[in-house]
Amino acid sequence: MATTAGKTITCKAAVAWEAGKELSIEDVEVAPPKAHEVRIEIYYTGVCHTDAYTLSGKDPEGAFPIVLGHEGAGIVESVGEGVTNVKPGDHREYLADPVLILGLYSTPECKECKFCKSGKTNLCGKIRATQGKGLMPDGTTRFKCKGKDLLHFMGTSTFSQYTVVADISVVAVQQDAPMDRTCLLGCGITTGYGAARVTANVEEGSQIAVFGAGCVGLSVVQGAVINKAGKIIVVDVNPAKEEWARKFGATDFVNPNDLKGQTIQDKLIEMTDGGCDYTFDCTGNVNVMRAALEACHKGWGESIIIGVAAAGQEISTRPFQLVTGRVWKGCAFGGIKGRSQLPDLVADYQKGALKVDEFITHRKTLGEMNAAFETMKSGDCIRAVVDMRKL
Amino acid sequence: MATTAGKTITCKAAVAWEAGKELSIEDVEVAPPKAHEVRIEIYYTGVCHTDAYTLSGKDPEGAFPIVLGHEGAGIVESVGEGVTNVKPGDHREYLADPVLILGLYSTPECKECKFCKSGKTNLCGKIRATQGKGLMPDGTTRFKCKGKDLLHFMGTSTFSQYTVVADISVVAVQQDAPMDRTCLLGCGITTGYGAARVTANVEEGSQIAVFGAGCVGLSVVQGAVINKAGKIIVVDVNPAKEEWARKFGATDFVNPNDLKGQTIQDKLIEMTDGGCDYTFDCTGNVNVMRAALEACHKGWGESIIIGVAAAGQEISTRPFQLVTGRVWKGCAFGGIKGRSQLPDLVADYQKGALKVDEFITHRKTLGEMNAAFETMKSGDCIRAVVDMRKL
Repeated sequence: MATTAGKTITCKAAVAWEAGKELSIEDVEVAPPKAHEVRIEIYYTGVCHTDAYTLSGKDPEGAFPIVLGHEGAGIVESVGEGVTNVKPGDHREYLADPVLILGLYSTPECKECKFCKSGKTNLCGKIRATQGKGLMPDGTTRFKCKGKDLLHFMGTSTFSQYTVVADISVVAVQQDAPMDRTCLLGCGITTGYGAARVTANVEEGSQIAVFGAGCVGLSVVQGAVINKAGKIIVVDVNPAKEEWARKFGATDFVNPNDLKGQTIQDKLIEMTDGGCDYTFDCTGNVNVMRAALEACHKGWGESIIIGVAAAGQEISTRPFQLVTGRVWKGCAFGGIKGRSQLPDLVADYQKGALKVDEFITHRKTLGEMNAAFETMKSGDCIRAVVDMRKL
Repeated sequence: MATTAGKTITCKAAVAWEAGKELSIEDVEVAPPKAHEVRIEIYYTGVCHTDAYTLSGKDPEGAFPIVLGHEGAGIVESVGEGVTNVKPGDHREYLADPVLILGLYSTPECKECKFCKSGKTNLCGKIRATQGKGLMPDGTTRFKCKGKDLLHFMGTSTFSQYTVVADISVVAVQQDAPMDRTCLLGCGITTGYGAARVTANVEEGSQIAVFGAGCVGLSVVQGAVINKAGKIIVVDVNPAKEEWARKFGATDFVNPNDLKGQTIQDKLIEMTDGGCDYTFDCTGNVNVMRAALEACHKGWGESIIIGVAAAGQEISTRPFQLVTGRVWKGCAFGGIKGRSQLPDLVADYQKGALKVDEFITHRKTLGEMNAAFETMKSGDCIRAVVDMRKL
């Protein structure tokens, strides 16, 4: 048992005190885990657009002060009563037990609730109510800074050197999994890859279009390549993304800004002789979501919404689009069940079947967290990985 | 061969001269069928809301003058060159060969086009372009009245005592099928029944909601009953429809006007402990379509749009509804392939497995066609069947 077990740990964290302001590196107190909770030393975290979205203040459910971050990998420091799925231990044992943290709103996996038992979804309902409020399942928070409680984010809060999460939000993966890469499987890569292989389950020879060539979009591409899609068209307004798209296996690239008067849906229908079998929105832009649906083939084309739209925005189309056989759906975390399926993705990565390293364009330290956010806004960044043990 | 074969036939038809006006019973000239066309003596036709919609002038693609009607049964009078799927003949042969006419925009079945061969849809692309313009595949019309060409409607035009249709729009059914009932399988009944059994394929024990208890909605109910749905909730603003709904097998009935401040989606989520597994819009109202989607269970609920919305109207929702696992789809003709599958539905009707007679609340003659339209607007009409051989 670690000597810190049962005690409050003081460590560094990037704290979001209020919307629209930079993160502040602070000393935070992290309380010990209660029953069915796990305290984790975070080694590496990714920085995702969803973190930036909440920090910006545009997320109507965003509350402050909060510890953001939801793509993390680390080592279990200690566990609360009743935790059986991961083990604490001395340093050697930690290394034997790297964990990935399951973020986003409903992607823990309790294996007991109506959702988990349905066999139809990867969403889990067990801790959703408190998680949505930034609290642990008992309705309180484990973070304190300058005498104030800090909220948890998505049940994860990986921008702290130590965090506390529900046991159903953690999965132990292979001992030799390199945390500085596999941390990205906690959100973006898995989301896109799962959308292509689980939610859509793209068939061999299919024609697909992917809107947005960031981490999620490029992961859709690699999922579609594995499923042997025939034509993989990537759509992005940034011409620099063409090289990225082709590197991951796209067969075609379209920049909507280059279309003289033609809509992107008409262009895609033309390129595919009638429309795409599957389209994926990885932009969060509701106008793009509509274009993605309308670019689908009449009779069977399916459009999958992955991107998170800004608050209050709505998608629209003529109902005729659906009556004539198109299907509009979406997914969270790519339809992947975190605890049941993530270890398989890590194994796929380790045997070279799943690209992860290629997504990492920038490396930063905890002390450079604000720079990591800035980097993300530049067009040449796919993913920045932050080393949480360095300031 | 009928003595009329190869000659123009003059007969009575209900002609729609212009939008918003009553139909006019006229003598029309019906030209002989060209290659791959069939001339049919119509015995019975249903009257559907889609006919009324086009007549009203609200359908932006509606053009005049036109012969409406798309739920018909009759006997083949003569066929053009190359027709092999139905046979003309003398009167005895006619009786041996009653036909149903496949209406709506894309429900012929050529068995040769990309759509028919896909195995994924019942839509057929072969004659869509000309059919949408009210013309036969060669770009001309077979109807004339007072020296003017009359347009065809949905490739069917069953409001004429004789009509000409493409051979891929006709299916021969059992010799002893009573045309005064089976005519309704040409549209409404098949549409609802197929939506439940083919498009949704409702599972045993599922909880479903059906919005609108007309012919289509009640047919969804009977399809769901056959598939052993556990809870079948019918939603309609007309309280008289409760008796109808229960007669067809609904377990519950909700009148949205009786909900004090609660939305219909919240009411349905409450009644089903989380949301419906399947919902069906049979109203054509885009606000109802949204409610139907949002009444679905998170994680897996599917909403199927069957109703035809007014021109220019759009459906909307928050994309979060889809990202959290709901599916929005639709169907035309219930996903049923007209020529391949309609004879099976007729067989089901004849052995008592499919209700048809129960839908017929009114019987009219060709001369009473305008009265049939008026009847449809009254709340107590499910379907009016018109005897085309009586004035």
